[in-house]
Amino acid sequence: MAMTKKPVTGMKDILPEEMAVRNYCIGLIRDTYSRFGFSSIETPAVEHIGNLLSKQGGENEKLIFKILKRGEKLDLSHETTEEAVTDSGLRYDLTLPLTRYYAAHASELPSPFKALQIGNVFRADRPQRGRYRQFTQCDIDILGDPSPLAEIDLILATTTVLTKLDFHGFTIRINDRKLLKRTAEKAGFNESDFEKVFIILDKMDKIGWEGVRAELSESFPEETVSAYLASFKNSGGEEVSEDDISLMNETGSPLMTIISAVNEVKSPDFRVVYDPTLVRGMGYYTGPIFEIAMDEFGGSVGGGGRYDEMIGKFTGQATPAVGFSIGFERIIMLLLERGFSVPDAAGKIAFLIDKNVPDAKLAGIFREAMELRAEGKCVDIARMKKNKKFQKEQLASAGFEEIRECYAD
Amino acid sequence: MAMTKKPVTGMKDILPEEMAVRNYCIGLIRDTYSRFGFSSIETPAVEHIGNLLSKQGGENEKLIFKILKRGEKLDLSHETTEEAVTDSGLRYDLTLPLTRYYAAHASELPSPFKALQIGNVFRADRPQRGRYRQFTQCDIDILGDPSPLAEIDLILATTTVLTKLDFHGFTIRINDRKLLKRTAEKAGFNESDFEKVFIILDKMDKIGWEGVRAELSESFPEETVSAYLASFKNSGGEEVSEDDISLMNETGSPLMTIISAVNEVKSPDFRVVYDPTLVRGMGYYTGPIFEIAMDEFGGSVGGGGRYDEMIGKFTGQATPAVGFSIGFERIIMLLLERGFSVPDAAGKIAFLIDKNVPDAKLAGIFREAMELRAEGKCVDIARMKKNKKFQKEQLASAGFEEIRECYAD
Repeated sequence: MAMTKKPVTGMKDILPEEMAVRNYCIGLIRDTYSRFGFSSIETPAVEHIGNLLSKQGGENEKLIFKILKRGEKLDLSHETTEEAVTDSGLRYDLTLPLTRYYAAHASELPSPFKALQIGNVFRADRPQRGRYRQFTQCDIDILGDPSPLAEIDLILATTTVLTKLDFHGFTIRINDRKLLKRTAEKAGFNESDFEKVFIILDKMDKIGWEGVRAELSESFPEETVSAYLASFKNSGGEEVSEDDISLMNETGSPLMTIISAVNEVKSPDFRVVYDPTLVRGMGYYTGPIFEIAMDEFGGSVGGGGRYDEMIGKFTGQATPAVGFSIGFERIIMLLLERGFSVPDAAGKIAFLIDKNVPDAKLAGIFREAMELRAEGKCVDIARMKKNKKFQKEQLASAGFEEIRECYAD
Repeated sequence: MAMTKKPVTGMKDILPEEMAVRNYCIGLIRDTYSRFGFSSIETPAVEHIGNLLSKQGGENEKLIFKILKRGEKLDLSHETTEEAVTDSGLRYDLTLPLTRYYAAHASELPSPFKALQIGNVFRADRPQRGRYRQFTQCDIDILGDPSPLAEIDLILATTTVLTKLDFHGFTIRINDRKLLKRTAEKAGFNESDFEKVFIILDKMDKIGWEGVRAELSESFPEETVSAYLASFKNSGGEEVSEDDISLMNETGSPLMTIISAVNEVKSPDFRVVYDPTLVRGMGYYTGPIFEIAMDEFGGSVGGGGRYDEMIGKFTGQATPAVGFSIGFERIIMLLLERGFSVPDAAGKIAFLIDKNVPDAKLAGIFREAMELRAEGKCVDIARMKKNKKFQKEQLASAGFEEIRECYAD
């Protein structure tokens, strides 16, 4: 029977070389966050369709892989809507399952709860280069801590992971939704227009200052727009100005506490920059927001922020929360492009065994291999092929430093 | 908006304590097999519906979570069959995706190819205690090696994993489909009846010798049944008899080579027993088959065998193959029941920070925490709560050996 050999559209098989890099990164991420007091958790890949469609997911809700009901519950003869024939779907992010998880298990968890999730998510997006319909996300969240200690620790932990992966010269851009709102208010925008203004401001990276000015001017008075854009001119940067600090104090923003603590402690591998134009798409953020900008990548490789109201909205119990999502797939891509290879533990040895080696001798060979493995070495045992030369070349190119040939005598 | 808090029916959220054990096991499994020359691979959780329904999966094909087509391809108004409205589904095992993977990538992979897959599979089974609809499988396969070196290495690697997890006194039961067939043939069964005979023989654990005799007698002559069952009487065990060895030589079975090599090398933690009544369900096995029996569990915690014909059937290119599947969830269950806890690296310290600590002092605390973390310690930083006593008790019970209180002066 013929089989379709390619993976389903938009998903990919992972070959051993990439898999080694992924596993190395996952190990390093788990190890690093655990030293910061984070616990790993896992939620099912399948989620209730009602939860997935609860408006928390924004545009992602259009990209859900929906799962057919089963058995008697399925009636395709009479039902003609997706709602009636599906009961669940694949998760499109890790935030929604975390919210559900916390709602279900808060009483069994410490407070604050520091969670690390690494898992696959699924989006039926238009397939394009480097973007897949199944991909790994890595989310780190602190639930139940209203203080900026949470932001500081999240930033320190995440930048520690990146520097351990040998990334340098990246920038943590940081802002606060409270500052964003106050600045818009001062310029004369109405609160009801804030989200619209921020969506346009968020395009700065793509369309530049003049583009933002033009787009804002289509909907708002010239004067307001000019005042707004002027307010950013002497604001932000590595050195935070007195005016900026006043604004932070005025709004009760903890940004200076976060920036100064991180700056005092951080490695010289990265910079922290206050960026008053940073928006971060999701409307659910309520306080500090941050993003990792990496020149190598020409964009963000992670970001997050404080979302103090979301969990309460879904669980009925107010729970301050702040989270970071690392662009796992982007980091893997950068490492692979850079030719990163996983530090090898202890040397690789291959034993090639001629087919005439008798059982009695075979046992001795395996015993020796087991001893070398117990010492930490990687030992591969294989039947010697007719084209021994080619076999040895292949093993050498796969990193086997020593190749032993074993014959009957 | 209200949210369903429980996971979808039959699936589970994994709490931090269990997750720590799971991650520890996964790390140990990956590390151990890599020393035996195995490479990790990954396939998507979603598979073509045609592949899933290609009769390779036996009963599991009835348990598929099917995924609805999307966009224009979906026509619920006119289509009334599952075939017409679905295009993919969640994988129910890792063997089918491995076959597809190998068919798609053989030219990019070494030969023989030693693959380790750890991943979630999905079965819409009736939910029952300890069995979930999403669970982790761990499969190890050697593709392209027709020699018993593959079986020996698989058994040595897998038993090494188990002994590293502190399992003792387990038994590797081993048999060969060739011996199974020859014994049935000698007793007088027709080849066309073999599968039926083996299905009954496979019930030995549940219904005993007399049960097997009774059931065989319903369909076959008393004489044949008696001859068949008698043939097992002086056969099998830790010491393989001369008669058994003759039968192995007669059928070209490599069982003695495997048994003697493993016995020569193995740790005293487990036994290898030739069990001529071992069947292993799947009809696709062609040679040696094996199973790990663990008294603690009262059943099998893993098994596998040689399946030289399956890959060729799907890919058109004959490829010898032998694989082992470890019962990952059973092993986790046994470890949790046993109160297993992950060996802690370097000590856990909590810093409790009073809300009046000024920013200038905060930086110093974080710096100290970062230094301790760099030394390998786990350092948790949290806001000191009003009920400090309770907070400290909770931290102590979570394994924090040292708790430092940080005040403004």
